[in-house]
Amino acid sequence: MRSRRVYDGSVVSLRVDEVETAAGYRASREIVEHRGAVAAVPVLPDGDVLLVRQYRGAVGARLLEIPAGTLEPGEDPEQALQRELAEEIGMRAGRLQRLTSFLPSPGFLTEVVHVYLARDLTPEQREAEEEDLEVVRVPLARTPALVASGEIRDAKSIIGLLLASARPR
Amino acid sequence: MRSRRVYDGSVVSLRVDEVETAAGYRASREIVEHRGAVAAVPVLPDGDVLLVRQYRGAVGARLLEIPAGTLEPGEDPEQALQRELAEEIGMRAGRLQRLTSFLPSPGFLTEVVHVYLARDLTPEQREAEEEDLEVVRVPLARTPALVASGEIRDAKSIIGLLLASARPR
Repeated sequence: MRSRRVYDGSVVSLRVDEVETAAGYRASREIVEHRGAVAAVPVLPDGDVLLVRQYRGAVGARLLEIPAGTLEPGEDPEQALQRELAEEIGMRAGRLQRLTSFLPSPGFLTEVVHVYLARDLTPEQREAEEEDLEVVRVPLARTPALVASGEIRDAKSIIGLLLASARPR
Repeated sequence: MRSRRVYDGSVVSLRVDEVETAAGYRASREIVEHRGAVAAVPVLPDGDVLLVRQYRGAVGARLLEIPAGTLEPGEDPEQALQRELAEEIGMRAGRLQRLTSFLPSPGFLTEVVHVYLARDLTPEQREAEEEDLEVVRVPLARTPALVASGEIRDAKSIIGLLLASARPR
């Protein structure tokens, strides 16, 4: 199979593969490469979750999301997650349980997102506090309604919050 | 804001935006542009859903997914969905209800996926039958277990099936 590298970037890279289809035709497939990401549903002892609201330039909107971040090359997902939890909500998780690892858009994108439930949260120094990021506290039990209304509308947050809400407490 | 176009493709395009952060720093943002997609949970009168299994080169695996496809430029989502339902499962939906419109990866990707519940299905000529596509029939009530086990692991299918399962019949 021939493959042409179009772009090598810091977050994404792009290649075009020449493939032969099952029927013997030749076709091009644009593949967006991404290192993968981690995300967590951080649940406090009273059942509230800590969400973050931030501007997302790709979609031109401020979104309400669960804390998340991109994996560094070769980085352990749980270590990456502790870094993101510290940076985004100023917390460290004493317990991390994986809820799922999902594929955001497998038709063209290699990205895998590992989603965790984060509990036993303790305050952590926010070393590299992110700009323009607002922390929002809501009851976990109310999040399915925020998904239904479209207030929460990114894949990792919908999937993480629906799976966390469906678990026995 | 300066923006540099890197690639214009048939499924995705790539640009790099130069942005000024809230703190006044300059930064580059790689943005993957995508026209958007449609997907549907097709439910038969007996409560079974029709899924499709196909090879996804970007992730190197055969995935079990709900029927879906990319929007053509300017295309109406429901019209696109009827085309995909005919091509992938050989059916036409008498009733389409939107479950949600979600963002697969809003940190860098413009794609929006419109997800519907498709009912009153009737057989339709499969005009342009897709190769290498196996139709799999499973009870809707069993799909949350397939999500939990990781057998179903792409965002649109997890979101569509969890939302459809949570609805009153």
